[in-house]
Amino acid sequence: MENVDHIGIAVKNLDERITYYTDVLGMKLLSIEEVESEQVRVAFIDAGNTHIELLEPMTEESAIFKHLEKRGEGIHHIALQVVGIEEEMTRMKNEGARLLNEQPKIGAGGAKVAFVHPKSSYGVLYELVDRS
Amino acid sequence: MENVDHIGIAVKNLDERITYYTDVLGMKLLSIEEVESEQVRVAFIDAGNTHIELLEPMTEESAIFKHLEKRGEGIHHIALQVVGIEEEMTRMKNEGARLLNEQPKIGAGGAKVAFVHPKSSYGVLYELVDRS
Repeated sequence: MENVDHIGIAVKNLDERITYYTDVLGMKLLSIEEVESEQVRVAFIDAGNTHIELLEPMTEESAIFKHLEKRGEGIHHIALQVVGIEEEMTRMKNEGARLLNEQPKIGAGGAKVAFVHPKSSYGVLYELVDRS
Repeated sequence: MENVDHIGIAVKNLDERITYYTDVLGMKLLSIEEVESEQVRVAFIDAGNTHIELLEPMTEESAIFKHLEKRGEGIHHIALQVVGIEEEMTRMKNEGARLLNEQPKIGAGGAKVAFVHPKSSYGVLYELVDRS
């Protein structure tokens, strides 16, 4: 693990929540993007040493839609930067971690990503992100 | 706001969870501390560009005990570094934010800290941390 790549936060209305982060928390909006594979619209916010990723569901099929239904708005996941995601996934499985996907998929910004099962991480959904 | 100071995670058993972070996620334990004001035992984990703070309640009076009862283990808060916490609290109140404390209190590592009401931050508990 290298760094915290970003912290993902589930929101109901992306444009309204961006205003909170820029005007009240005083952070800078970096970009807005649609991630088809996850059915989310995403805003990247500059939080200094890391990013905050605001996630709004595009459809009811999105995992973010389900999160909002079940738990409401709030922190959804922590993404950790890795180099060599396939090797890291194998290493973690050997250490007893459960992964939500067998192979990496393509996430925001074209990075290779994979998720660790939150039961395996004691209630925290960790995403592995390989941008190398 | 300068940086993400740490991400706070509520856990039931500090020593067991530390093992997950060091052995499975491959991170380094930095220190363990008791914070009397919050009635928590805290482990700081090196996550590269920021820290992860694992929080175990010492008593049933701890906010972390209540979080575990209500939501189970998982992410509890995001701490943002600020310089001049009193001025930042005033500025945020003027922008419409609700704060959980009127005056900063002393948190882990002797820093001045204050919390933003999660209703005000759309489901995210933000802590302001002034180490200056």
